[in-house]
Amino acid sequence: MSERYQKGLKQLQLMNEDSYELLKKNLDDIAPDLARFVAEFPYGEIYTRKNLDLKSREIATVAALTAMGTAPLQLKSHINGALNVGCSKEEIIEVIIQMAVYAGFPAAINGIMIAKEVFENKED
Amino acid sequence: MSERYQKGLKQLQLMNEDSYELLKKNLDDIAPDLARFVAEFPYGEIYTRKNLDLKSREIATVAALTAMGTAPLQLKSHINGALNVGCSKEEIIEVIIQMAVYAGFPAAINGIMIAKEVFENKED
Amino acid sequence: MSERYQKGLKQLQLMNEDSYELLKKNLDDIAPDLARFVAEFPYGEIYTRKNLDLKSREIATVAALTAMGTAPLQLKSHINGALNVGCSKEEIIEVIIQMAVYAGFPAAINGIMIAKEVFENKED
Amino acid sequence: MSERYQKGLKQLQLMNEDSYELLKKNLDDIAPDLARFVAEFPYGEIYTRKNLDLKSREIATVAALTAMGTAPLQLKSHINGALNVGCSKEEIIEVIIQMAVYAGFPAAINGIMIAKEVFENKED
Amino acid sequence: MSERYQKGLKQLQLMNEDSYELLKKNLDDIAPDLARFVAEFPYGEIYTRKNLDLKSREIATVAALTAMGTAPLQLKSHINGALNVGCSKEEIIEVIIQMAVYAGFPAAINGIMIAKEVFENKED
Amino acid sequence: MSERYQKGLKQLQLMNEDSYELLKKNLDDIAPDLARFVAEFPYGEIYTRKNLDLKSREIATVAALTAMGTAPLQLKSHINGALNVGCSKEEIIEVIIQMAVYAGFPAAINGIMIAKEVFENKED
Repeated sequence: MSERYQKGLKQLQLMNEDSYELLKKNLDDIAPDLARFVAEFPYGEIYTRKNLDLKSREIATVAALTAMGTAPLQLKSHINGALNVGCSKEEIIEVIIQMAVYAGFPAAINGIMIAKEVFENKED
Repeated sequence: MSERYQKGLKQLQLMNEDSYELLKKNLDDIAPDLARFVAEFPYGEIYTRKNLDLKSREIATVAALTAMGTAPLQLKSHINGALNVGCSKEEIIEVIIQMAVYAGFPAAINGIMIAKEVFENKED
Repeated sequence: MSERYQKGLKQLQLMNEDSYELLKKNLDDIAPDLARFVAEFPYGEIYTRKNLDLKSREIATVAALTAMGTAPLQLKSHINGALNVGCSKEEIIEVIIQMAVYAGFPAAINGIMIAKEVFENKED
Repeated sequence: MSERYQKGLKQLQLMNEDSYELLKKNLDDIAPDLARFVAEFPYGEIYTRKNLDLKSREIATVAALTAMGTAPLQLKSHINGALNVGCSKEEIIEVIIQMAVYAGFPAAINGIMIAKEVFENKED
Repeated sequence: MSERYQKGLKQLQLMNEDSYELLKKNLDDIAPDLARFVAEFPYGEIYTRKNLDLKSREIATVAALTAMGTAPLQLKSHINGALNVGCSKEEIIEVIIQMAVYAGFPAAINGIMIAKEVFENKED
Repeated sequence: MSERYQKGLKQLQLMNEDSYELLKKNLDDIAPDLARFVAEFPYGEIYTRKNLDLKSREIATVAALTAMGTAPLQLKSHINGALNVGCSKEEIIEVIIQMAVYAGFPAAINGIMIAKEVFENKED
């Protein structure tokens, strides 16, 4: 296990360990290296970088995934991640609403429906 | 001039008055209502909302526009806006680099080249 | 309730009141302002504008949502809207097929499958 | 020369012969079959279909290309095509502004700037 | 039945007859011409062209559909097609993983999950 | 210099050293880590993997970048890369034309125009 991989797994503990465990399990029999790359590159290299706090990093990711509209599962996972690093529900909702301006109302509405699902699961 | 329009223009003074003046001038003879909508909706309604600070809002916008890759002029304008509301160059660079994870390396590289152009213009 | 909001709700009665009621209900506990923005901006400001008839406006929206391929629920809702403002099923099908040229065959095929679902629900 | 190709060339005379001649010339030494496919499929097969008038077809295309934001040259060509089949400048502007709702303000603004260029060239 | 249509159906026998039969059935009562176009243009005109072998053609299609992220059903169908023309599961997995670089990790992960589903169905 | 970085630089010598040197120079004063990531991850980790030959890998990349339509500079660089690893001009043209089916004719036409530019530069 490389140093970056260990660093990534440690970072994932702070951010969203459950999502990663599920991903790893899903990829295990078909593309285990892709799961390793996720730990090593985004988490081991990017989210551990200086110069930007984790809250801002998750805001950036939630914004991008909402705007792109092609990755609902990953948006779900990063809304969870945003909550885990200290974003409030209100802040997440604001980020998603704002995307109506840059990616259109459907992107914002679909993002909010995903946030709703995440928030409801948290309450259970 | 509606209240929202005035509110938007005031908000634009904080964020990126020059970009808006240029946009307004460009749209003046063909679609002046679109310029008005930009003042009224994104600036009069969205950027003035509570629950999320302006720095975070510009981080979200820079992230989304980098990831989408279809709006280089608007990305340029919002990198400027991000600087105007207190983001450091280093923070903006981090947001853009992070997009490699969600939208691919070309999106991140193209975003950085746009940031480079903005930063160089600021120095002149 | 602002004048624009009232104007938007009235416009929605012409176009697709049921979809909006459902949206409003879905957003009510999480982002009610986003539902209000939908009434105020697209319906209160855009669809009420002059210079383009409503049929042409819904054709434009169905085309764009088919081509983008990221908003199946909104495409469904606007296929309904197109029928409500006087587009025939045949016209809607033509718009969607034409998108094969600009956004690829998968976009057109996925759009047609959504139209099929809408048309079948209408018949019940 | 196939029947469809001839049908396509005839349709292009109605819609936008100059754009096609330029395309054909550009593709001639590298991918002449792609130019032939453009005449045969979009023009020979799609734009000649019944059940939707040409004005509505160009409205659909302008809407989709504005929303996608990845094909500025083709948008330019179809704004010209829209004018050629009887759309007014005002109608084209309305279609493009409306895309702010579905694809975001940057897409609409970039679309309007392209329309402006087309309209100015027409005036010369 | 045109020559191209027959040529397309024959090509589909080599590549993915079952997917096409299903598509044809789904489109039969709503847009049968779109099904015909699929046989005629992609299969009758493109996949039968010289200068690139079918394996490479399916690699290109799997790559593009993974990167776009808007056509999961068509990606599924073309992963099947890739297997039918001689790509190994390992090759398909490599193509999809590689898309993490150009379209982001979510696109690659979502592509792999679709491949997993296709491979599991094959085993039944 | 990490082992992966060295491995990536070596891989880049096979594939497209000039493009990388230019990228590195462009990013040097603003985001040198992004240039390092490009060497380490796409080239050090992905293009060096087994189970898929380099020609097929460049076909996949050219297909994806053509279909996405948001990264013309990177498409240019990978058309060069494809030539460097043994793809013929004819094969590259076929890949790009094929994208008309999945991402629309504008994407294919724009891709061909970029290929034309690359091929003409090679001849000088």
